[in-house]
Amino acid sequence: MSQGAHVFAGGGLDRESERRRDPAWVEARLADPTSRFLALWHLQILVRSGEASGLAWATSALRELADREADAVLLGTNGGTAHFALDLSPLADPLAALGLEGAAEFADLRAIAPRLPAQEAGIAAQARSLVDWHARHRFCAACGERTEARQGATLRFCRDCKSEHFPRTDPVAIALVTRGERCLLGRQAGWPARMFSSLAGFVEPGETLEEAVRREVMEESGVRVGRVRYHSSQPWPFPSSLMLGCLAEAESEEIRIDAGEIEEARWFERETVRRALAAPDPARDALLLPPPLAIAHHLVRAWAES
Amino acid sequence: MSQGAHVFAGGGLDRESERRRDPAWVEARLADPTSRFLALWHLQILVRSGEASGLAWATSALRELADREADAVLLGTNGGTAHFALDLSPLADPLAALGLEGAAEFADLRAIAPRLPAQEAGIAAQARSLVDWHARHRFCAACGERTEARQGATLRFCRDCKSEHFPRTDPVAIALVTRGERCLLGRQAGWPARMFSSLAGFVEPGETLEEAVRREVMEESGVRVGRVRYHSSQPWPFPSSLMLGCLAEAESEEIRIDAGEIEEARWFERETVRRALAAPDPARDALLLPPPLAIAHHLVRAWAES
Repeated sequence: MSQGAHVFAGGGLDRESERRRDPAWVEARLADPTSRFLALWHLQILVRSGEASGLAWATSALRELADREADAVLLGTNGGTAHFALDLSPLADPLAALGLEGAAEFADLRAIAPRLPAQEAGIAAQARSLVDWHARHRFCAACGERTEARQGATLRFCRDCKSEHFPRTDPVAIALVTRGERCLLGRQAGWPARMFSSLAGFVEPGETLEEAVRREVMEESGVRVGRVRYHSSQPWPFPSSLMLGCLAEAESEEIRIDAGEIEEARWFERETVRRALAAPDPARDALLLPPPLAIAHHLVRAWAES
Repeated sequence: MSQGAHVFAGGGLDRESERRRDPAWVEARLADPTSRFLALWHLQILVRSGEASGLAWATSALRELADREADAVLLGTNGGTAHFALDLSPLADPLAALGLEGAAEFADLRAIAPRLPAQEAGIAAQARSLVDWHARHRFCAACGERTEARQGATLRFCRDCKSEHFPRTDPVAIALVTRGERCLLGRQAGWPARMFSSLAGFVEPGETLEEAVRREVMEESGVRVGRVRYHSSQPWPFPSSLMLGCLAEAESEEIRIDAGEIEEARWFERETVRRALAAPDPARDALLLPPPLAIAHHLVRAWAES
């Protein structure tokens, strides 16, 4: 898969890392009638209703609706036009307040993303991660005082102890483990029947990506991994992961499940995987793979078609 | 460079992701006289004094010295022996309290790491990241209340709002940008004279590793990057980064500096870089490169020797 082609990649806004440090510049963008505002409500994204899905951008007038707590989050600029995200969760009926009943709706990003233009899916991913981070980080982890958003809400600042807090991005090691003509897939309890995916887990402090792959695969399946090759990466805004996709070579075959992490792990023949990719059919008694939304789909495809 | 060969990689402890959830198991390891404890003091690491450098491990008796606040951090097990890190920062004179004056000393990890055995440097990296994270995250970012360490201090829990907080690992995109026989290096104000390194910056929410490389290089140097290839990764415990090292191909040459980020960026000929790698000499009026401790060194070497 070519780099940057994953869903949620390609937002492409200029994040204005330098100019966002200037409060006057941010304030001018907030007041600019050409600036665009994306509304979120309980982490759902405002999209246009109807067939032609797309983000429902509003103008700076939207800002009047927001709570003072809900600082507008600068996403970046595109051709000079500033783009912000705004959390309307304090409103009971934001569609009515916006006068957009029937014209727009709040949608779950995971559900709507496959129907969004690629760039808009990327921008929505950025917006969702940042709005969620602000909502869950109103206080200073160092001293417990309230923090305030700064630099277009790209960080939070504690007036009390002067700590700066930056949004989290949590690296996740996700690997398709293979051995000859077979690959190792696992399933979690609660997934749709017969659905399996590649193994994954957070990279912990003090380990490399490659070490995290080996540790996670060992913990979840008991399989020993040797060589690890990086494949591609994907931002995953649920809430703020960076999926680091790898292809990994197994050095052992026996599976021992860690029931705390996954329900089942199993080796699948390449031919079985190819059939599942070619004709996903929920009615058949066959392997189900994650949809193209997920990097796991592309790791499996890269191996199955190699 | 082979995977896992970076300094700070290869700690190799079994992190016991499953058993650490059992408080009785953790308590038994804490009391076990064969368990090993690594003392830290203001983020410095206790090492043996003298020529043969190594971590100065202590037994569970060390735990008596620690403040109640300073929860022992489970690093993992090795051959069944539990390893913990313990923050002695509340003590005024920890060496005297330990009875180790002359036999051990607290050392800066960056300074001591090149002299530590590889596995010990990795364990120390893990310990430093985790101890520092606890020290700066005593309060709940969601509600402001005090949190408490759980599961061998591998997470913090808020009794008030029931939030779980996990240690941060911040992914950093670091890239050697090349164009034919030249590579792009930058220097920050305050670095030793003539020292240059590859460009780097944190991956932000909603972007891939490859997008972060392109954005950072554009922001810092004005150079446009096309193809990005992942090379290797390194845990960097200052405080808790995951360095994701890449080789990147420039599509433009003109340099425009962002003075807020770096002081200077410059193209260097491959031959100049080879000479700097072969004979680093602070007395000469020549390029200085980062030491082998840093992944930047290995990115530069991979290109120079290719």
